[in-house]
Amino acid sequence: MKTIIVVGLGAMGASVAEGLRTPTSKIFGIDNDAATCKIAVTEHVVDEIIKMDNLLVRNADLIVLAGPIRMIQDQLQLLQTMKLSGETIVTDIGSTKSEIMESAKGLPNFIGGHPMVGTDKKGIRNRNKDMFVGKPFFVVGDSQKIKLLSNLLEPLHSDIQAITATDHDKLVTSISDLPHVAAFALVNAIDRELPNNQLGWQGSVAGGFIDTTRIAQSNPELWSQILLSNRDSVVDGIDQLMTTLQEYKLSLIENNDKKLTEHIAEAKRIRQKVGELHE
Amino acid sequence: MKTIIVVGLGAMGASVAEGLRTPTSKIFGIDNDAATCKIAVTEHVVDEIIKMDNLLVRNADLIVLAGPIRMIQDQLQLLQTMKLSGETIVTDIGSTKSEIMESAKGLPNFIGGHPMVGTDKKGIRNRNKDMFVGKPFFVVGDSQKIKLLSNLLEPLHSDIQAITATDHDKLVTSISDLPHVAAFALVNAIDRELPNNQLGWQGSVAGGFIDTTRIAQSNPELWSQILLSNRDSVVDGIDQLMTTLQEYKLSLIENNDKKLTEHIAEAKRIRQKVGELHE
Repeated sequence: MKTIIVVGLGAMGASVAEGLRTPTSKIFGIDNDAATCKIAVTEHVVDEIIKMDNLLVRNADLIVLAGPIRMIQDQLQLLQTMKLSGETIVTDIGSTKSEIMESAKGLPNFIGGHPMVGTDKKGIRNRNKDMFVGKPFFVVGDSQKIKLLSNLLEPLHSDIQAITATDHDKLVTSISDLPHVAAFALVNAIDRELPNNQLGWQGSVAGGFIDTTRIAQSNPELWSQILLSNRDSVVDGIDQLMTTLQEYKLSLIENNDKKLTEHIAEAKRIRQKVGELHE
Repeated sequence: MKTIIVVGLGAMGASVAEGLRTPTSKIFGIDNDAATCKIAVTEHVVDEIIKMDNLLVRNADLIVLAGPIRMIQDQLQLLQTMKLSGETIVTDIGSTKSEIMESAKGLPNFIGGHPMVGTDKKGIRNRNKDMFVGKPFFVVGDSQKIKLLSNLLEPLHSDIQAITATDHDKLVTSISDLPHVAAFALVNAIDRELPNNQLGWQGSVAGGFIDTTRIAQSNPELWSQILLSNRDSVVDGIDQLMTTLQEYKLSLIENNDKKLTEHIAEAKRIRQKVGELHE
């Protein structure tokens, strides 16, 4: 029987908890929110709610930290004072890994984790235990311990990939942080171009706007923390995006159809290649 | 019996042609591509393929120009030489309206049109006659003639809304052109941050990237023309987007969690309001 503890039972944490359930595992949950804890137990997301200071925490097989980044960092500090069993593997599902690996320095059995899935929905009711299936799940740390973690995470059926923290953060900036910043900024910019719902724009958008800005509905506190925890890399990414926008602007000012078409054709080619791998 | 002619039988034009069919209408199609014409007839998208110089064109009840913007502009020139019947209403489904209205000056019965729907798919095979149902369809021109056009377009079941060309173009820049530019530039920027598929980024993206960049797969020639036809307004929009990105960058550099969270919360609030109207 494996003892697995998931700390933070929001949409992501609850999905992990439910996804890890097997006949040979016992899943415990920790969460600050009483209503979430109640749902977690009554809907069998976890077997039991416990406290962070419980004996179970010190002797668990796996502890998954699934709250916002700063909470993960606080919990990593706390776990370092708790005399965990040498068998206990600790992981997280926060985004940025360099800062987290730094915070986890005193935990010998910590492996950083980051499943490449997400949701703009908040809370335990929006869990989906199948969201990890076939999706990349990046792990950062010692290769022997990665093997142990991979076995424990097997019920999620994700595609576990080892990566360095630096490479991970560069990758995540590009493919996750930057799309979020672009979606946030696009909505802000349109609201300024057409303030107070001028021309009824909010009722006139088509599918392009809807899709492009879907992730602008993500949790503000969570995303502010994610972006700040990876800020050097995100600032680089924003600079690159602004450079690219500047090129589009220049092609327009120069009335340069050829150059503009080339930029777009290049974007289309790259995006279609991604689509072939994913859709 | 109404005689309706659709010029340009790509994904959008073919959708209009099929959507306009009623027991009391006869739909004719015009297209340069022989394969498209063949499909249009064999799959009953139109009743018959004709040429632009046909008597039918001069006496049609409705002519819908559904090609790319420059082709629409050429066709508007041609139609001005053709002695159309005083009963013939001409419209288009191109994007930008100011330039098109200018090109159509010599056609007394021209009403500019722009259904707020689109597809990143190309060609007659990707038609969908129901794509207009319930969606805004902007029309620009004389109010009496708008009434006539509205009656003719009734089978599409769209939400016909009169607007000025200037207001239309400002609106469309914000809610359609700018999301496209953002999606194109985002893909270009990521490809530069991680060139040659570094770190396997193309296989590691999640739903956020997929949605945010879906419209980057749009037709490059078509979109280059759309953006150029509306370039002053699009350049303004790009400037606004860059200003907004600059604010995100500054909040990150200042490590200003409060300001960053406020920007994101504002974006979320606006986007959710749009979502309530559309999803």
